[in-house]
Amino acid sequence: MKKTPLLFLLALLTLPLMAQKKCFTIDDLIPGGSTYYAHSYPATKYLTWWGDACMELGIDRCKNIDGQVISPALATLTLENINSILAAHGRKTIDHLYSVTFPDPHKPHLLIDRGREKTLVDWDNRKVIWKATLPPEASNADWNKMSRSLAYTAHHNLYVLTADGTTHQVSSDGSADLLYGTSVHRDEFGIEKGTFWNADGTLLAFYKMDQSMVTKYPQVNITLPTDPQEENTRCATLAPDPYPMAGETSHKVYVGIFNPQTAKTIYLNTGDPTDRYFTNISWSPDGTRLYLIELNRDQNHGSLDEYDTATGQKLRTLFTEDNPKYFEPTHPIQFLPWDDTQFIYQTRRDGYNHLYIYNVKSGKQVKQLTTGNFEVMEVLGFNTAAKTILYTSNEQDPLQQNVFSVDMKGRRTLLGNPTGWHHATLSESGTHFIDNYSSPLIARHIDIVSTTKGHAQNILTAPDPWAEYEVPDIKVGTIKAADGETDLYYRLILPTHFDPTRKYPAVVYVYGGPHAHNIDATAHWGARGWDIWMAQQGYVMFCLDNRGSEHRGLAFEQATFRHLGVEEMKDQLRGVEYLKSLPYVDADRLGVHGWSFGGYMTTSLMTTYPDVFKVGVAGGPVIDWRFYEVMYGERYMDTPQTNPEGYEETSVLGKAKNLKGRLLVIYGGNDPVCVPQHTLSFMRACIDAGTYPDLFTYPGDGHNMMGTDRVHLHNVITRYFEDHLK
Amino acid sequence: MKKTPLLFLLALLTLPLMAQKKCFTIDDLIPGGSTYYAHSYPATKYLTWWGDACMELGIDRCKNIDGQVISPALATLTLENINSILAAHGRKTIDHLYSVTFPDPHKPHLLIDRGREKTLVDWDNRKVIWKATLPPEASNADWNKMSRSLAYTAHHNLYVLTADGTTHQVSSDGSADLLYGTSVHRDEFGIEKGTFWNADGTLLAFYKMDQSMVTKYPQVNITLPTDPQEENTRCATLAPDPYPMAGETSHKVYVGIFNPQTAKTIYLNTGDPTDRYFTNISWSPDGTRLYLIELNRDQNHGSLDEYDTATGQKLRTLFTEDNPKYFEPTHPIQFLPWDDTQFIYQTRRDGYNHLYIYNVKSGKQVKQLTTGNFEVMEVLGFNTAAKTILYTSNEQDPLQQNVFSVDMKGRRTLLGNPTGWHHATLSESGTHFIDNYSSPLIARHIDIVSTTKGHAQNILTAPDPWAEYEVPDIKVGTIKAADGETDLYYRLILPTHFDPTRKYPAVVYVYGGPHAHNIDATAHWGARGWDIWMAQQGYVMFCLDNRGSEHRGLAFEQATFRHLGVEEMKDQLRGVEYLKSLPYVDADRLGVHGWSFGGYMTTSLMTTYPDVFKVGVAGGPVIDWRFYEVMYGERYMDTPQTNPEGYEETSVLGKAKNLKGRLLVIYGGNDPVCVPQHTLSFMRACIDAGTYPDLFTYPGDGHNMMGTDRVHLHNVITRYFEDHLK
Repeated sequence: MKKTPLLFLLALLTLPLMAQKKCFTIDDLIPGGSTYYAHSYPATKYLTWWGDACMELGIDRCKNIDGQVISPALATLTLENINSILAAHGRKTIDHLYSVTFPDPHKPHLLIDRGREKTLVDWDNRKVIWKATLPPEASNADWNKMSRSLAYTAHHNLYVLTADGTTHQVSSDGSADLLYGTSVHRDEFGIEKGTFWNADGTLLAFYKMDQSMVTKYPQVNITLPTDPQEENTRCATLAPDPYPMAGETSHKVYVGIFNPQTAKTIYLNTGDPTDRYFTNISWSPDGTRLYLIELNRDQNHGSLDEYDTATGQKLRTLFTEDNPKYFEPTHPIQFLPWDDTQFIYQTRRDGYNHLYIYNVKSGKQVKQLTTGNFEVMEVLGFNTAAKTILYTSNEQDPLQQNVFSVDMKGRRTLLGNPTGWHHATLSESGTHFIDNYSSPLIARHIDIVSTTKGHAQNILTAPDPWAEYEVPDIKVGTIKAADGETDLYYRLILPTHFDPTRKYPAVVYVYGGPHAHNIDATAHWGARGWDIWMAQQGYVMFCLDNRGSEHRGLAFEQATFRHLGVEEMKDQLRGVEYLKSLPYVDADRLGVHGWSFGGYMTTSLMTTYPDVFKVGVAGGPVIDWRFYEVMYGERYMDTPQTNPEGYEETSVLGKAKNLKGRLLVIYGGNDPVCVPQHTLSFMRACIDAGTYPDLFTYPGDGHNMMGTDRVHLHNVITRYFEDHLK
Repeated sequence: MKKTPLLFLLALLTLPLMAQKKCFTIDDLIPGGSTYYAHSYPATKYLTWWGDACMELGIDRCKNIDGQVISPALATLTLENINSILAAHGRKTIDHLYSVTFPDPHKPHLLIDRGREKTLVDWDNRKVIWKATLPPEASNADWNKMSRSLAYTAHHNLYVLTADGTTHQVSSDGSADLLYGTSVHRDEFGIEKGTFWNADGTLLAFYKMDQSMVTKYPQVNITLPTDPQEENTRCATLAPDPYPMAGETSHKVYVGIFNPQTAKTIYLNTGDPTDRYFTNISWSPDGTRLYLIELNRDQNHGSLDEYDTATGQKLRTLFTEDNPKYFEPTHPIQFLPWDDTQFIYQTRRDGYNHLYIYNVKSGKQVKQLTTGNFEVMEVLGFNTAAKTILYTSNEQDPLQQNVFSVDMKGRRTLLGNPTGWHHATLSESGTHFIDNYSSPLIARHIDIVSTTKGHAQNILTAPDPWAEYEVPDIKVGTIKAADGETDLYYRLILPTHFDPTRKYPAVVYVYGGPHAHNIDATAHWGARGWDIWMAQQGYVMFCLDNRGSEHRGLAFEQATFRHLGVEEMKDQLRGVEYLKSLPYVDADRLGVHGWSFGGYMTTSLMTTYPDVFKVGVAGGPVIDWRFYEVMYGERYMDTPQTNPEGYEETSVLGKAKNLKGRLLVIYGGNDPVCVPQHTLSFMRACIDAGTYPDLFTYPGDGHNMMGTDRVHLHNVITRYFEDHLK
């Protein structure tokens, strides 16, 4: 009994000390917040390669990271010099050198890319070597540094501006229904763009997509009258968006090749493109062959096909790959720089994404280069002299991403720091890479790492931007999935000023879909700013990467096939069981929040297991996979025609009647990904069933809220839990 | 001190007695609720006129209300007989005789109108005299009982089916942009339909409206797939709605006259109809002349014009009427049955709506027939023999509607019960009327009243449907408007089981716009079911008919001109002051709720006076009059071009930043009246301003929620107050 007063006194003494650490504002934590960059974004350095020399870009100077003058010309590379050259040529001047690049490894050439205005400057000779000014409507600019040809799109047509200043209009019938030079197939299959230069920039492969046969989703723009004198401008306007829903008629894609020298375009002779996907375009090193991976609409059969780039004729299929569930190629083949008869092919056919060497003439596999229960994430490039391939993988730990080299015998070498999550940028000949990484306790490290010797030179250790803040405890661990076997990673964040004798409300943050994960070995174990905010408000925050999420292999992902959400929810319930086992978690005050696939998970959980969560907030949810698009949707769900039971089982519409807890659904008013019909149909289903969700929308926003809208959003989400879970 | 135990004991004794009265369910109180008709709708009788004989319609018999057989034929008028006649002619049989009518005052003819299938039966001779079966797409059916010609519209065109069975297609170029035979000018100016037969049914005047030049509001239908096998049916679809916004290009209206005998159509030669309103169509008794009131777009100048119905030529303007604010004719002229040189013209030119007699030849006023500080509401018809006009007015009391007669000398006689709110149906020659009325303590009375002798025969006194329920105290009184002079009526409802020593939260229900009122001398002083529901939940409910609302004269209404909402809010704040003066009202827990104009009032109050109300629920609101339609909007606000200050002052968008309390905004997903742009623009403005409204929508619903959606809605509204005001 005597100790109590002392403890009490100690507590009193401790509290003011603790209180010296600062509390976060929501603007500190949410991207788009006014103080986010100042208080949450770790310090960085602007680095780029000039050949094999790493350059640190400053406001008014660029220097070699060693401080060493690697070229006498470098002394003249100043902001003042550059701006005087730009001004002399009537170009806009720049405020800093942070984003310049050095396209020629051997020459004092600086590319200044200001979007529409691109200028290549020889700073040593004070000359503008090349420049381009694109029209205001231009986008998708794609510059080849060898030929200095620039492809771009405008008004749905494709243009090529060659180094001699000639502008070629490659297409003229472009329209909202007929797109040239843009990404196709809704950015699935690793497709991110629509133009592909060959190595020397003399031929341009490009996509053409006819979506005239695709049903248009009627998006509506809410315009505001800015001038009351203006007539006929104030009414909301229609923005029809071709959106092929699962099982419906899809678009048709063609691949063209434009030759600026002849000003001629040919198209690959693929035959009728109906229900075919042309993905992963790559060039042979000599530009005479184009390779692509063609996939059937069912996405269970693919073939690596070779086309003659002079005639467009298909020459042959090198090989095919099948998968009983789905086959999803996302990496174009890459030729080895030291042997143009061999290329790298990536596939998950052994259960994990690995590198294989193929012979281009025989079309046969030479060898599997990597193997093991880990995923190769990305090929960074090559050390040509050492004949090694540089890549990232999670071989060290499923939560990590590290850099490795592998030689032609399949010998792998870890490069750089063995912990954390690494982003690497390789030098021209692959001798070094810039290794920008974080780990749970490190906000940002930047090293320069040798790809042969492995040793690292530290460039930056950023101070923890949260050092002065009261940061909650963040723990990571594993529990077993609902299959009883698979390890799943969770992240648990304790409330700030945690008191183990109290009972706290807990909120599960969930995504759960393929091609994403939430828990990794980045700073704070990948905790989101909103997690920290909620911990500060007194919530236990929990997150679990269920089966179906990324980087854990094919079987882990494909467990969800044809009934998305079902196994994922079972896993999440294991997480809930774990949460409930924690003595400081109030099992009667559990909440759940997620966006997109996570919005689907949230609405599904609230209606499939209505007694588990008291409060949910779902954002931009899928509600019924029949409203989702063909490419992603049919990969995992097949079609409503071939899998009606799966679509029925996974639709949240039929479960609307089960809703018991408080559920807020939020959507972007012009969401082109999970179209508003998802959320609105769910509202209608709930109204018809006599259940009572809440709703919010961000008019004019797309699938995600950005900038200050994102801060507003997180205030809305937080308030909902404060209103109903506290 | 001795008394306390006794009082306590009495209280204990009283409570069980009180508890014997039932509590309402929300379904008892809200139209659309499963028990609404059983528990809130007073008993009624189905009555109609056969000439001057009042008929009570039963399931299988019709009888004269005196029980007296006024025609020997009546003995054969049985459901069985009628159904056997119908069946013999291949017509659908009927379940009851509640909705039959007797079009011929002297003959045993019964009209059975089943929408698409209309049959005129001679029940005595067991014959079908006339029948029509309209196509499924038909609407706007308009039958003339003299010629038995039937006008209707289908696929935007106008058709006339004559008694000989000939179908005339009056128009053929009808489309969503070009409407024939429908109501025009968005149902303003008293326009409710688009076809107008002359007295003997030989000529049909009709409206034609060209709205091709009107901006289309992009309404979106959320369709649900009913059959997963159906392709291309599941995507949301566009439903463009021509909606002319204030100050924008409006539609053009034409008036045609179709002659079934010649099958010819002529159009009135009005000249260019741009920015002109053709309203209040009526025929001369002999059918040779058509009269209409033409109004300019500014709605401050009107003229009564006469057209030749044979040529379409305009013959003359009888007279004009101007108003410095707005002139709003809503009653076509009516010729006196005993003198076709004279007609009734209604105008509010002396400050209240009154009846005037005009000579048609001279176009001059003969006399003002009614006068006084009251409003004539409706001309019911005439007692031809007595040469009196029957009409309703609120002369007895501003809250009442009673039936009066007036003779040609202007002598007015109150007919029937002097209290309450009366709906009257006149007999053929105007000797009697069915007087269906309620008053604050009477659910429904039905009398038959003589228009000459004034005496009444009681047909029904409906029992109070709430007799077994605990009904809260409902009080009505007046306070002064913000002008310090005008009396405004309020309705105050105390919480059920009211305890004057407690402090209650209070909710103001508001409409506040023109052409409507909330407080009147109907049952329970016009209290809405939701008021009763909220009183039962423990809220004080308050309602005030501010300046601008109906039935209080022109100056009262026009106080709001060019700045709708501003004076109305000032008046509502007087109501709030009164509320706060009540000792049992908790001034810190005030709420406000309103729909449509009331939604505008609610959002305006919450953002103009942000410290008054803690919680608001606004439904289907106007947010900015720039988004509202031309006819209603410009009448009260002029145009955004001519009244930019007024539009700016009254827009809720600029006030979004002021929001402090909790505000839920609800809208019908396809609201064609206050288009979704209102609510969505407000959400956008609040998000941009960093304020935090809540939102709900009823996808697929229009301006109001009906049926079970209405019950759902009122649960949503109630829950919001329970969440945030209790």
